[in-house]
Amino acid sequence: MSDALSLDALIHALKRLPGVGIKSAQRMAFHLLQHDRNAALVLARTLEQAVHNVRHCERCHTFTEAAVCATCLDAQRDHRKLCVVETPADQAALERTSAYRGLYFVLMGKLSPLDGVGPHDIGLKKLFERALDGSVQEVILATNFTAEGETTAHVISEGLKARGLLVTRLARGVPAGSELEYVDLGTIAHALVDRR
Amino acid sequence: MSDALSLDALIHALKRLPGVGIKSAQRMAFHLLQHDRNAALVLARTLEQAVHNVRHCERCHTFTEAAVCATCLDAQRDHRKLCVVETPADQAALERTSAYRGLYFVLMGKLSPLDGVGPHDIGLKKLFERALDGSVQEVILATNFTAEGETTAHVISEGLKARGLLVTRLARGVPAGSELEYVDLGTIAHALVDRR
Repeated sequence: MSDALSLDALIHALKRLPGVGIKSAQRMAFHLLQHDRNAALVLARTLEQAVHNVRHCERCHTFTEAAVCATCLDAQRDHRKLCVVETPADQAALERTSAYRGLYFVLMGKLSPLDGVGPHDIGLKKLFERALDGSVQEVILATNFTAEGETTAHVISEGLKARGLLVTRLARGVPAGSELEYVDLGTIAHALVDRR
Repeated sequence: MSDALSLDALIHALKRLPGVGIKSAQRMAFHLLQHDRNAALVLARTLEQAVHNVRHCERCHTFTEAAVCATCLDAQRDHRKLCVVETPADQAALERTSAYRGLYFVLMGKLSPLDGVGPHDIGLKKLFERALDGSVQEVILATNFTAEGETTAHVISEGLKARGLLVTRLARGVPAGSELEYVDLGTIAHALVDRR
């Protein structure tokens, strides 16, 4: 394929997508050029439009095309509650439960010292300003229950509690529908400690 | 993410890539917009350029930016041998062996009746014209050793043998470096039949 430089460049660009190696990139490029050139043009256009239009909400930091996202502007929501999540996908998962009607703050990342991600790389300063603007009474930490997510939750919790704010964390426990026999020991231990 | 229409459109476009589901598409879009907007723009540009520049070689049907690809124009190659492969990636695998110095014909697909891919959808007519243009003395079938690849090889073989051409097939057998104990029965059976 040495005399198709555009093809080599396309494969190289596809390889920069997360989770895509050289074989997948080749298969994608082959598929697009052989079977679906329209999809390639649509993808090119949507990439440019997204880069041009998508920015961060001034209040909650999630992706939006307006200055402030629709969720933050929703007067029906409980503005006294602020739920902190790592990504827009996590926010979407919480929204699907219909069990929460407060506002969000989306970190767009997590503390990960091993990868060089510190407090300045995720929006911690912005979160603290937002949480302490006077309207928020409770901050609910819904970062993931991974090592990095727990660390992030801990750092936020310490910082906000010191300033006198009520800070809670999503409950840890046995997942709905699961049998104890197949649940890992750490989860059962947490469920015992947090029993009610 | 309902008020970021460009983001939804991008996720939808990424989902059209082969092997990419909704979760992967979301992760890709998030990564590009949050961490690597430059990669997004590069990908958009290379997609457009590839769609615009890449076409099929008039002689061997592979991807190229010229009318005839560099391989077909190479006077050092043995123009009496024509090796038939399914994809440019298969051609590249054969080239890496340095064991073949003839020409190629790239089908850009394989016969797959269950998926509605018939002789007209892959370049069989063009292959027959090419193989019977007077310069080719041997056609080497290097389609994959899958059900579809074998069917494709069989159809080509029948068609060309009827026209008096020498048609050969890559040898089936035990892969180099493998232990018989771990080789599947079908492969061992073929290696027995094709022993030499």
